[in-house]
Amino acid sequence: MSTSQSNIRPSGDNGRIEFWFDFASPYSYLAAMRIEEMATRAGLGVSWRPMLLGPVFKSVGAPLLPLFAIAQKGEYTWKDLARQAAKFGLPWIRPSQFPRNGMLAERIMAGHPDAPWTGTFCRAVFHRSWGLDQDIGNQTVIADALQECGVDPAAAIARAGEDESKLALRQQTDQAVALGIFGAPTMIARGELFWGNDRLDDAIAYAAGEA
Amino acid sequence: MSTSQSNIRPSGDNGRIEFWFDFASPYSYLAAMRIEEMATRAGLGVSWRPMLLGPVFKSVGAPLLPLFAIAQKGEYTWKDLARQAAKFGLPWIRPSQFPRNGMLAERIMAGHPDAPWTGTFCRAVFHRSWGLDQDIGNQTVIADALQECGVDPAAAIARAGEDESKLALRQQTDQAVALGIFGAPTMIARGELFWGNDRLDDAIAYAAGEA
Repeated sequence: MSTSQSNIRPSGDNGRIEFWFDFASPYSYLAAMRIEEMATRAGLGVSWRPMLLGPVFKSVGAPLLPLFAIAQKGEYTWKDLARQAAKFGLPWIRPSQFPRNGMLAERIMAGHPDAPWTGTFCRAVFHRSWGLDQDIGNQTVIADALQECGVDPAAAIARAGEDESKLALRQQTDQAVALGIFGAPTMIARGELFWGNDRLDDAIAYAAGEA
Repeated sequence: MSTSQSNIRPSGDNGRIEFWFDFASPYSYLAAMRIEEMATRAGLGVSWRPMLLGPVFKSVGAPLLPLFAIAQKGEYTWKDLARQAAKFGLPWIRPSQFPRNGMLAERIMAGHPDAPWTGTFCRAVFHRSWGLDQDIGNQTVIADALQECGVDPAAAIARAGEDESKLALRQQTDQAVALGIFGAPTMIARGELFWGNDRLDDAIAYAAGEA
């Protein structure tokens, strides 16, 4: 199955929930670390959908960093993130650098859409960024995450640099916009959009046909 | 106790939770209808704090209608509101007019800060606006809400037109900005801000000393 075919899979198929995210998005972290366990409990699979939030924000006319466009809201957001992470039992360090560049990790995921390790890798990268304050724009950090997932770093990083992987991530970002996505994380369940970590439970329930 | 004294009460006293809102805010509706019952169960009182969101948004540099500044987000927001209202068992009609002018009802509340009927009146107004699609900018609608609460409409509406009530609402709006409030609803619990209907449970738990 080629990458471009994988990008035209129907959205929000039955039995699965789509998770649209960018590694730069802190609320995506809170949801990414929990979604697969919650989905499994509900008998659902997760389709991981990395996207580039920059072009998404640009295309809908949002500021580049919507959470931090208003100073008071930005200050509050850091507090809220720390409290939410504590509530979910997730490690949290206010990042020494923001936003961080998740493009390499996203190209790796987009270039391996059907790999069995995508969920584990996704969590390994999110954990390094938001739980350990590591620079995921750095290739060494990503290589370490791949290794942890039992993936050959050199091969995966090389493939991420190929046109097919770059194109796959660009196409997926275009698809996000076409689907009406305007922020991250966004879950798609049976064709319906659910925006934000705060809607993760609702999205799972809806995908499972309970709501 | 004069109105201006009531406006300098310390924020987020122990045993109480402050509820800052504007009747024009749909997510304030979802929280306003539930907060008193939840607070009572946690052994807490509610301090109702109407404010004018227009000046708050202006002072923090937010757009006048932040939920609807991005078309895609606005469309999603109406869906989300309907789903959330259904989840909480609250009546919901997508309003035929938006935003609606809550100033009269807010001046009534600001002019009667310690009245025993403020919570009931607040819910009666919110219900009319978002549950029944009535124009709360209309004096007849507000008179009807007052009557339902056993309050003499003529006297309460007259008092809302006095300078003291107008000033009280303006001062409370200024206080909101000084407290770092940037949107509605905002709960203040033991001095901490919690923003949004999605944080109502967390705010109650924090106010009760559980978090």
